[in-house]
Amino acid sequence: MMDCKKALAATAGDLEKAIDELRKQGLATAQKKSSRTTKDGAVDAYIHAGGKIGVLVEVGVETDFVSRSDPFKEFTHDLALQVAAASPQWVSRDEVPAGVVAREKGIYAEQVKGKPDNVLEKIVTGKLEKFFAESCLMEQAFVKDPDRTIEQVRTDLVGVIGENVEVRRFARFQLGESAAEA
Amino acid sequence: MMDCKKALAATAGDLEKAIDELRKQGLATAQKKSSRTTKDGAVDAYIHAGGKIGVLVEVGVETDFVSRSDPFKEFTHDLALQVAAASPQWVSRDEVPAGVVAREKGIYAEQVKGKPDNVLEKIVTGKLEKFFAESCLMEQAFVKDPDRTIEQVRTDLVGVIGENVEVRRFARFQLGESAAEA
Repeated sequence: MMDCKKALAATAGDLEKAIDELRKQGLATAQKKSSRTTKDGAVDAYIHAGGKIGVLVEVGVETDFVSRSDPFKEFTHDLALQVAAASPQWVSRDEVPAGVVAREKGIYAEQVKGKPDNVLEKIVTGKLEKFFAESCLMEQAFVKDPDRTIEQVRTDLVGVIGENVEVRRFARFQLGESAAEA
Repeated sequence: MMDCKKALAATAGDLEKAIDELRKQGLATAQKKSSRTTKDGAVDAYIHAGGKIGVLVEVGVETDFVSRSDPFKEFTHDLALQVAAASPQWVSRDEVPAGVVAREKGIYAEQVKGKPDNVLEKIVTGKLEKFFAESCLMEQAFVKDPDRTIEQVRTDLVGVIGENVEVRRFARFQLGESAAEA
């Protein structure tokens, strides 16, 4: 609340600018806290479509007290909804196996072959960024507010709760997909 | 209900024997149905200990109608509770990697070395059975009724609902264990 009032005063009552200001503060806080270990946290679950999709998420935070706070609980719940709706395959791009990246790059290069090298390079890079944005949870557009990525939602939460937040892992079960795999 | 009455009549009112009779019928039904494909089913979740443990389970059954029935829902819920409480590592012994079995056997053989071969063989087999009974979900004693294994609970359910039931997979997240692994 105090931060909101201060931000509104600093931007002479311009709400949009005040929000930007708060988000910048959140980012600054998030960067400061990003090296702090998350010893506590929570596991949350979400069942979608009458039991046809199920999701588990694990999110770390610094204290048990904050892990039981409403903003944190809202985040873990939103995260589980996100995984159910947007089917990410990895938490972040660091987790994407090198072989997958190489295969994607090969496909993109094949699609645009014949173009000059510098153009080709640019297109491949662009397509790869799009691939990460779709398949990595932290880079996905938040389904409840597509102007923010999940990483931005996380950063905003760090600004609110003042503790580091770490999205550790998720599992997504869609009925029948395991039978199809086998 | 009709099955219960018939079983009680057949055993001259002996309740224990009637239950045995019903379980045998359930087993016979289960064996008959075990080859039938489970096209439908449900994913269920359970959060334990205030968000410190989370479980997902996927269970197949033949029809959507039965997947929404109370006995089936009770089973998926009990299964999720079981995974939370008893931490199985695999669904069945078929899934245990050969390397794990070999390592376990090696440890047991080391523990009883010096004994005659036939005694050693018996002890190792016994210990391995115990390992499967503890680490494989279907062989675990049901926490809510330790006289039955999960496989027996499944078989009993098949007898009740008259459709094949397949425990497909589970996931169990315990807060902090992923950080410890990394």
